[in-house]
Amino acid sequence: MINAPQGRAVQHTAGPAVSTAVESAMRRALALAAQGPSHGPNPRVGCVLLDPGGRPVAEGFHRGAGTPHAEAAALAAARSHGIDPRGTTAVVTLEPCAHHGRTGPCADALIDAGVATVHVAVSDPNPVAAGGAATLRAAGIEVTTGTLADEGEELLRHWLHAVRTGRPYVTLKLATSLDGRVAAADGTSRWITGPQARAHAHTIRAQVDAIAVGTGTALTDDPSLTARTIDGGLFEHQPLRVVLGRTAVPDDARLRGPGGALLHLPEHDLAVVLGRLAEREVRHLLVEGGPTLATALLATDAVDEVHAYVAPVLLGSGPTVVGDLGITTIGAAARFATHDVTRLGDDVLMVARRTQPVTNSLTNPQPAYPRQNGRPSRPTTEEI
Amino acid sequence: MINAPQGRAVQHTAGPAVSTAVESAMRRALALAAQGPSHGPNPRVGCVLLDPGGRPVAEGFHRGAGTPHAEAAALAAARSHGIDPRGTTAVVTLEPCAHHGRTGPCADALIDAGVATVHVAVSDPNPVAAGGAATLRAAGIEVTTGTLADEGEELLRHWLHAVRTGRPYVTLKLATSLDGRVAAADGTSRWITGPQARAHAHTIRAQVDAIAVGTGTALTDDPSLTARTIDGGLFEHQPLRVVLGRTAVPDDARLRGPGGALLHLPEHDLAVVLGRLAEREVRHLLVEGGPTLATALLATDAVDEVHAYVAPVLLGSGPTVVGDLGITTIGAAARFATHDVTRLGDDVLMVARRTQPVTNSLTNPQPAYPRQNGRPSRPTTEEI
Repeated sequence: MINAPQGRAVQHTAGPAVSTAVESAMRRALALAAQGPSHGPNPRVGCVLLDPGGRPVAEGFHRGAGTPHAEAAALAAARSHGIDPRGTTAVVTLEPCAHHGRTGPCADALIDAGVATVHVAVSDPNPVAAGGAATLRAAGIEVTTGTLADEGEELLRHWLHAVRTGRPYVTLKLATSLDGRVAAADGTSRWITGPQARAHAHTIRAQVDAIAVGTGTALTDDPSLTARTIDGGLFEHQPLRVVLGRTAVPDDARLRGPGGALLHLPEHDLAVVLGRLAEREVRHLLVEGGPTLATALLATDAVDEVHAYVAPVLLGSGPTVVGDLGITTIGAAARFATHDVTRLGDDVLMVARRTQPVTNSLTNPQPAYPRQNGRPSRPTTEEI
Repeated sequence: MINAPQGRAVQHTAGPAVSTAVESAMRRALALAAQGPSHGPNPRVGCVLLDPGGRPVAEGFHRGAGTPHAEAAALAAARSHGIDPRGTTAVVTLEPCAHHGRTGPCADALIDAGVATVHVAVSDPNPVAAGGAATLRAAGIEVTTGTLADEGEELLRHWLHAVRTGRPYVTLKLATSLDGRVAAADGTSRWITGPQARAHAHTIRAQVDAIAVGTGTALTDDPSLTARTIDGGLFEHQPLRVVLGRTAVPDDARLRGPGGALLHLPEHDLAVVLGRLAEREVRHLLVEGGPTLATALLATDAVDEVHAYVAPVLLGSGPTVVGDLGITTIGAAARFATHDVTRLGDDVLMVARRTQPVTNSLTNPQPAYPRQNGRPSRPTTEEI
């Protein structure tokens, strides 16, 4: 199960017993959804089918682009066990899609299967795929939305942000001493944080679509930007490696070694950069450095979440984690809201999120995120 | 109960049942001890008396200088309930003292009472008071030491440090942004951290013997350095207020208002400063600022514990929490060991401790800490 706060009660249901069964099924559907990949162009969705007595009879989840949607997976599971889905209640974490992708719309599949009722956690904000609830209702199916909506929003946080704003969710990783330094005066920085913090950072790399650094970091540190396990092996998923800036990436750079595809964007305009990444279906971008890029992102209000790994270390000199942000007084500080605090060995990870709405300058008014059935259609190994 | 890790098993006892009873009684004695004041010249001590069957029959703890020691309190409690302490087992968190203060030595009191066995968590390192175990053994009483020794050491951490080194335990408080800044470029700093972090810092003030700032902070911020409750009232205990530096404290400074006594030390030599505070029976010194004093303490390896309140804020400019420490490479960083991490609203508190032994330059070879029965004998309202 995902670690979710106490959810809201289901609305518009037949009674307390059904309400409890639906909420329980939605928790299961959320847990199923969380088994899908957190990266990739498609949202993570789970679905549980209940018989008229409220008992679960089949379930399914989306395993990533190119595989069946959760509703189709649940219906197929029911049929494979000889269960007729007619009259069942479908409990699904995201509003069933109404568009034709590689397969037909999930709304039609539920109608064709004779499902009687549909409970949804989160409505689909995607203008291409939305309308599933209306399609279902037009077919006489009772639809309620908002069951465990907060948990559903949290699970789909990055995808929803990308659909709503037309640009990737940007997570800025920082790894600093208590005095905000990323290296000592002589430039040495290995290691400020400890092995547990570094291992954790690699698990985050394995969950995102892309990871970005500036050319300065690419040339100075020669990073591989791979997602590695504790024993040094590569995770199955490797994020797209993005280098921002005009300087060429050397032929022998580790960035050209094993790992995700390399994308070199000579852009300095971050709105353009994020738009380019959106076109490539990057929903979640992890930015790892260094101070120049972090400063540019913060100064343009492009950071949606900060992952700050803080070590119990004081240096007293050396480069600081961010440069001048044009902030002159405390009331104008770039302030985030702490979402989670985790101790990792001697270090602490603060996960803190945006407190202000996304500014328009970075929002694409025409979201570039069709919800797909197929594999991403664009090439992923190019340099621009 | 104190929040203690799993303790060691008792050694040298009659058997598992007695062992369990003694360990249980020691946990109670530690909890009792923790009810005593964490400030003041005397250690916090608790004592539980067990009958020959291992059942607790009386208990006591030390309530601060000028009140009975824990053993005397427990014996008095037994007698007030008509219980003869002869043949009982005394379970006490610190080795009973062997010196004559305002009352006679606790070791003699236990011998006179006819106690049969004594279990101790921590031996007394105080050369004036030590020797209690030997006195008891010479009188034919069985004495074991080391029961829940780790928990006992933790409870007496500041006092033991002061007795062993001859100088106060120094806790350095830092309150910073994620980029290690204590104020914005225009000097504004209210508030980087939130109300929960500030309230927590006041509870720490109420637990220490003294609180120190440099004259720079005293003049710039005009702090009161009082320990205040959430509603703005004063805690019963107010720490000695220490200002370090040559500049005079203005007549109308808040430091001269309600609160603890004011001590102005024009010293720049931190070994001398700590020695002066040790003479005044300061066991635990909290240093609150600013960067100049923090830097001096860190540069002389005088910091025993760091309390870093970190806010999810980025400033990009403004003064950093510490200045140049003479550290040029990462291997020479001032590195502490994290003891505890606490989320306080949006902020996080990292409590991190010294990893290297105290250096000799700051250690007084002749500890100036007699364990007292009486009130501190030195005046506490002077300026030097």
